[in-house]
Amino acid sequence: MNTQLNIGLAQLNFHVANFELNKEKMLKSISEAEELKLDLIVFPELSVCAYPPKDFLEFDSFVKKCIDTVHELAAFSFGIAIIVGCPAYNNGPGKRLFNAAYVLIDGKVQHIYHKGLLPTYDVFDEFRYFEPASDFQVIKIKGEKIALTICEDLWDEEIENVGGDGKLRKSYNVTPMDILIKQKPTCIINIAASPFHYSQAENRHKVLKRNAIKYQLPIYYVNHVGAQTELIFDGGSLMIDAKGDVIKQAKYFEEELLIFAQQSVRNVSTDISTSEIERIHHALILGVSDFFKKMKFKKAILGLSGGIDSALVCTIAAKALGNENVHAVLLPSKYSSDHSIADAEKLAINLGISFETVPIQETVDAAELTLKSSFTNLPSGLAEENLQARVRALLLMGISNKHGYILLNTSNKSEAAVGYGTLYGDMCGGLSVIADLYKTQVYELCRFINREKEIIPQNTITKAPSAELRPNQKDSDSLPEYDILDKVLFHYIEKRKGMEEICSLGFDETLVRRIIKLVNSNEFKRHQTPPILRVSPKAFGMGRRMPIVAKYD
Amino acid sequence: MNTQLNIGLAQLNFHVANFELNKEKMLKSISEAEELKLDLIVFPELSVCAYPPKDFLEFDSFVKKCIDTVHELAAFSFGIAIIVGCPAYNNGPGKRLFNAAYVLIDGKVQHIYHKGLLPTYDVFDEFRYFEPASDFQVIKIKGEKIALTICEDLWDEEIENVGGDGKLRKSYNVTPMDILIKQKPTCIINIAASPFHYSQAENRHKVLKRNAIKYQLPIYYVNHVGAQTELIFDGGSLMIDAKGDVIKQAKYFEEELLIFAQQSVRNVSTDISTSEIERIHHALILGVSDFFKKMKFKKAILGLSGGIDSALVCTIAAKALGNENVHAVLLPSKYSSDHSIADAEKLAINLGISFETVPIQETVDAAELTLKSSFTNLPSGLAEENLQARVRALLLMGISNKHGYILLNTSNKSEAAVGYGTLYGDMCGGLSVIADLYKTQVYELCRFINREKEIIPQNTITKAPSAELRPNQKDSDSLPEYDILDKVLFHYIEKRKGMEEICSLGFDETLVRRIIKLVNSNEFKRHQTPPILRVSPKAFGMGRRMPIVAKYD
Repeated sequence: MNTQLNIGLAQLNFHVANFELNKEKMLKSISEAEELKLDLIVFPELSVCAYPPKDFLEFDSFVKKCIDTVHELAAFSFGIAIIVGCPAYNNGPGKRLFNAAYVLIDGKVQHIYHKGLLPTYDVFDEFRYFEPASDFQVIKIKGEKIALTICEDLWDEEIENVGGDGKLRKSYNVTPMDILIKQKPTCIINIAASPFHYSQAENRHKVLKRNAIKYQLPIYYVNHVGAQTELIFDGGSLMIDAKGDVIKQAKYFEEELLIFAQQSVRNVSTDISTSEIERIHHALILGVSDFFKKMKFKKAILGLSGGIDSALVCTIAAKALGNENVHAVLLPSKYSSDHSIADAEKLAINLGISFETVPIQETVDAAELTLKSSFTNLPSGLAEENLQARVRALLLMGISNKHGYILLNTSNKSEAAVGYGTLYGDMCGGLSVIADLYKTQVYELCRFINREKEIIPQNTITKAPSAELRPNQKDSDSLPEYDILDKVLFHYIEKRKGMEEICSLGFDETLVRRIIKLVNSNEFKRHQTPPILRVSPKAFGMGRRMPIVAKYD
Repeated sequence: MNTQLNIGLAQLNFHVANFELNKEKMLKSISEAEELKLDLIVFPELSVCAYPPKDFLEFDSFVKKCIDTVHELAAFSFGIAIIVGCPAYNNGPGKRLFNAAYVLIDGKVQHIYHKGLLPTYDVFDEFRYFEPASDFQVIKIKGEKIALTICEDLWDEEIENVGGDGKLRKSYNVTPMDILIKQKPTCIINIAASPFHYSQAENRHKVLKRNAIKYQLPIYYVNHVGAQTELIFDGGSLMIDAKGDVIKQAKYFEEELLIFAQQSVRNVSTDISTSEIERIHHALILGVSDFFKKMKFKKAILGLSGGIDSALVCTIAAKALGNENVHAVLLPSKYSSDHSIADAEKLAINLGISFETVPIQETVDAAELTLKSSFTNLPSGLAEENLQARVRALLLMGISNKHGYILLNTSNKSEAAVGYGTLYGDMCGGLSVIADLYKTQVYELCRFINREKEIIPQNTITKAPSAELRPNQKDSDSLPEYDILDKVLFHYIEKRKGMEEICSLGFDETLVRRIIKLVNSNEFKRHQTPPILRVSPKAFGMGRRMPIVAKYD
């Protein structure tokens, strides 16, 4: 069975709370769809206000604007039906709102569907705002019955929901499609807000395929594209047939009006295969560019150390913002090696970005002189190392404030995890670009960027990583080798395994204990970091909420 | 009707994830209760692991430790019944865990009660971890039926849950007590984790009273005491009779085993009246002292400007940690007035704390000289002001790192709201002590502290507030007068009113627009602030989650 309707899926880049912009984008898509004589155009979940609106939903003035926008859109629903995501008030007991899909036909709101399954885990907080629906009805468009659903409604079996018995289990008590299927719909429509992480596209295909086959119905799926601070939406809107085959899919990371006119649906092959690292690359570029665009920032600034992290962030920034909008600062100290300066300069030249050199030593010396009596002749150590990192931040923020640049943070996930960074020093910035990439992924992404020609200097990639805060310092003086460190971190952070479980995988107990202790004792530092572009299933930030004051093992 | 059991309510100061400590405290209380020949001892919600355990609950190893602790406690339940809060695995679909109360009798777990109403708003995230129960059974102890409930189970009517129709409404679809009452219990026991804010004690009394009268049953209520990072638990455990009168109440902010032996319950008068500002004063002292104790920190450091905010934080720290554990640093610049230095010194002497003077000018000059060419002759302005604030942070953090002190942040809620502070400058610190107090509350608290003698110098309280980052600067150059500012902020932050609603209360539209714009455009700054001790119903931090990238009006 399949619908006879001609359907357009509008994969758009919305902006949180930017009602004018969001409406304008939707009206443009509606007008295109009308020209194509489509019967129905579908916008993603909470499209009027973009996703996630967070505590804006607690403001009545905000909810009113959302609903007003829907009514304004309704005026354009003559000749074409419109499905749009927007909150709706709940008249019964429970939370004040539903997460809803409004069906607009002939100038009116004809149906309102309420979401039944509310993701409340990781980066999702939907139960904070919304009441889950328990009654599910198909909607009717041109006489056809359609099973309209919202995102999680099709994800009743969450992939990681393993119980105390070690078995995978259903995450919800109800399965909306089990109710809707009894009403004999011709297809499933799913409006989504499904943020990117490096394996989310596969998860999504798996879940949609499972639903299509289970209910023997085609699925039309529309997702957001674009970044909202930490969360990057990759699009990938698609139609999957009742056998579970993807028939047509929108591009990743770009806006697209994906069209299904009945005469042209079949046999459109879609090449959607990209490697994980390529997708991460795209995601980070989109993350940076949308952050700047939506915040109305223009120019980025960052410190280039000659090391791999700042080189990668700089390269991504140049791709995202244009090389004319990235300004690099070399901040050498007496511990900086010649190759550091040379490598940093080479990168800046390769990228065609402006750069300047601002030596830190005089400020460091002045501060140390001022602190001499406070330091009471204690031996030089971490305090002096941190001081250098903080003077770099002081100077970078000075230039940033003076010229209106935004400082990019260059921490990676391995060092953010173990606290190998200076608070108010190299942990500063308006946006943290690669802090969801382990160091080994940083290397992988650099090699990917260099796959055709050397953009990031080879020496930056091959030399041993060092913070250069004391003579001949190497990361490996303080940290385990990154290939082991990153694996242990992955099991602890992404997989939430405890010490014994990780050791049972064959890692050395002393090492595992040390790493976990480092992760835990640095919660206070991560609490104060900039927002981090999320590319993994478990990023630091809003999706990982650990106590600060706690006894950790 | 009332229970014939002799009951002890153990209001204890637990530590998140510190199983050994928590167990030890419970065992001590059990042993006291046994000596008093009580029938039952009751511990608060999630007492084995303390509240809130946050994403620890996603670790199986953690849940296992919680449950193991309960089994260890069970060995002490011969002769006395024990009720203890602990997560339990869910064997059905849905979230993996229940928030549960275990009833331990004769060495065994005899009942497990699952919480039905899961707060998921403000600082609460319970639906992130727990499945709400829908089946409710009384428990039996010595043949008596008891309605055992967990915290929110009695709060079915949340105070601020106003719907789209403007009417107050029930926050949940189910009322556990309506089911339990049919089973004819003799009393209600409520184990809670109810964090302090300045009007929470009244809310609590109101809710408990409403329940007691509605069900015509006495209520035994036991709460946590002590702080876990941002959240401060004030205790206030109590027994309220079936008429809704408080019969006996534990102290606020202190541990106590509150005893109800049947012969002694009646006619114990309890004076629990304290003013709002007095409670805030207690709460902040407990917040600071528990943060240090539980993090195993000893000494605090802070910058004393001579202004009221740092004076207040310093006074609270001295009370919380002892004057021997607080070290103040005066960081004068060329813009510091004589009275600033004199007022700061006078405070330090009044408090009997150590202090030193570390002038910032040489480091500022060195940085400005280094930045001369980068600043390209642009006129002096915000960049130079921020530089001074950041040099202060640099020097403070240097001393802090060198001697292992923890820097206290001194921002207040008014300036945190409008972004009147320098990121990586005066916004630094390991803990933010008064950032949930509006400036007008800061004055009120200082006057309270000075009620008997001058501790905070009178000049600090009476002079016009200034950041002293340029000649003759006053807060009022950049900000509206605090008494108006704070009122507008209160309506926007605490009450989530929109612009029009606030203007309709009689405030000037231009001013309201400007204030709201300042609040919104500074979300990025607040994202990077230290944890803030929460004393209001809506503090910045985990309880207020606003987007960064968004279009705000």
